[in-house]
Amino acid sequence: MPAAATEPAPPAKARSMQEIIDAAKPSDWRALDPARTLYMELDSGRVVVELAPQFAPEHVANITALAHEGFWNGMSINRSQDNFVVQWGDPEGENEANRKPLGSAKGKLPAEFSRASEGLAFHALPDRDGWAPQVGFVDGFPAARDPEQGQAWLAHCYGMVGAGRDLAADSSTGAELYVVIGQSPRQLDRNITTVGRVVEGIERLSVLARGTGPLGFYEQPSQRTPIRAIRLASDVPAAERSPIEVLRSDTPLFDELVEARRNRRDDFYKRPAGHIDLCNVPLPSRRTPGK
Amino acid sequence: MPAAATEPAPPAKARSMQEIIDAAKPSDWRALDPARTLYMELDSGRVVVELAPQFAPEHVANITALAHEGFWNGMSINRSQDNFVVQWGDPEGENEANRKPLGSAKGKLPAEFSRASEGLAFHALPDRDGWAPQVGFVDGFPAARDPEQGQAWLAHCYGMVGAGRDLAADSSTGAELYVVIGQSPRQLDRNITTVGRVVEGIERLSVLARGTGPLGFYEQPSQRTPIRAIRLASDVPAAERSPIEVLRSDTPLFDELVEARRNRRDDFYKRPAGHIDLCNVPLPSRRTPGK
Repeated sequence: MPAAATEPAPPAKARSMQEIIDAAKPSDWRALDPARTLYMELDSGRVVVELAPQFAPEHVANITALAHEGFWNGMSINRSQDNFVVQWGDPEGENEANRKPLGSAKGKLPAEFSRASEGLAFHALPDRDGWAPQVGFVDGFPAARDPEQGQAWLAHCYGMVGAGRDLAADSSTGAELYVVIGQSPRQLDRNITTVGRVVEGIERLSVLARGTGPLGFYEQPSQRTPIRAIRLASDVPAAERSPIEVLRSDTPLFDELVEARRNRRDDFYKRPAGHIDLCNVPLPSRRTPGK
Repeated sequence: MPAAATEPAPPAKARSMQEIIDAAKPSDWRALDPARTLYMELDSGRVVVELAPQFAPEHVANITALAHEGFWNGMSINRSQDNFVVQWGDPEGENEANRKPLGSAKGKLPAEFSRASEGLAFHALPDRDGWAPQVGFVDGFPAARDPEQGQAWLAHCYGMVGAGRDLAADSSTGAELYVVIGQSPRQLDRNITTVGRVVEGIERLSVLARGTGPLGFYEQPSQRTPIRAIRLASDVPAAERSPIEVLRSDTPLFDELVEARRNRRDDFYKRPAGHIDLCNVPLPSRRTPGK
């Protein structure tokens, strides 16, 4: 038998992540909804947070009210703990006499640690996870699901934003927020209300000098980073908005991107991993073309 | 039957991580070996790296030769890529005409991506891992093992140090080093030679402004962070050494610490995770008492 007849055809050259992103059609992207997008304005520039009302409706309603009323304007980033979180809010939050009133936001919310998975478009990863029966993406957010219990929740990956709380499960209001800046602390999943994700500008937060007090809180007020303002994008004049699109996480193109990272085919990698962790999946964003 | 006879005894109150560390005996700690400890001296202070000759003997021999001969003194940190790595070495490393000679270090080394697991005291975690058949610790380093293939390797967790290379597997010399500063890039496991771990001072590296060039390299030389010196601890006068001890990872006390993090029993956590990821296990260090 001639060799040509027995040799399998070489596999089609797999595309790199960049080639996949470059080939994305307009419908592979989705624009952020200005009504659920926060702009945190620092001296170093803007940090953009996409909120997740499908997981934490009460917290997101509170956060949008606080942003709309300028609650955080002039406050500060008060905590930077290495390999864990950066946190902001009212530096007098623990001091009942001095803390700033929440305005029209509620002072008491239910814990929103998880929700019914029914009604969510859960795009599952085939990859195994140690923390949850199943992981995947919902509307671009890394998430987990327990099919037996019918529950789903957001996963504490790098860049995810949560609502700080005290010991009581229902003690968060959304006024105190943190972002993950290290190895994913998935042990927090279902122990705290997660409200969204930083989609642009995380590097303005992750580099902040670590606080030297307990839990990475700054010991001196002068060490805190001032927050000029936190605003809802919909409260910002259109010309001053950041026209951001996020790659949709429920498309064949996204699946191809995940596979390109699960099994790297470029010349650098000698051994494709055959696996990807939920929190290692890149979630690309871009400026809307022509804007 | 009286209730008292049927109720199970309450479980013994589990100790917190801090209580466990406080209860550690001197034999639960091990001092760093000065002959395999690097001090990177920055304007902001010292970064301490423990080398892993049991995994990368040729690279560690090269690195100790380079340190002993002052190779890195006056060089710089040239790369800071968010959620990935910070990297240092000869800024002219890619420029054959201008780069600094390696002195007595070798210009060519074998790839040391993994080694025979025989002869290693591998302390396995029971927790499942997506990237490897088994994970655990070897002499305080996070590691993985494939019992079928009889191979073991270091895992790319936060703070792990590796040897940068070009496309060829055997193109690293140890002159170019990086440290993980984000979500563990475990896809690099067995694709690059890992040489050690930062045991103190990681926060001097993780906060460096991110480079704006490709892969987080700095675009301007002025953006680089100068390295005053990288020295072997054994080349430093005893009085100037950092007397560091690391908690041993092969003791019942360490297992208790891992369990305290796998299933948090403090008042904050409402739902113990029942799992811990290799890269979420804390690796405590301390200053040697009385030094």
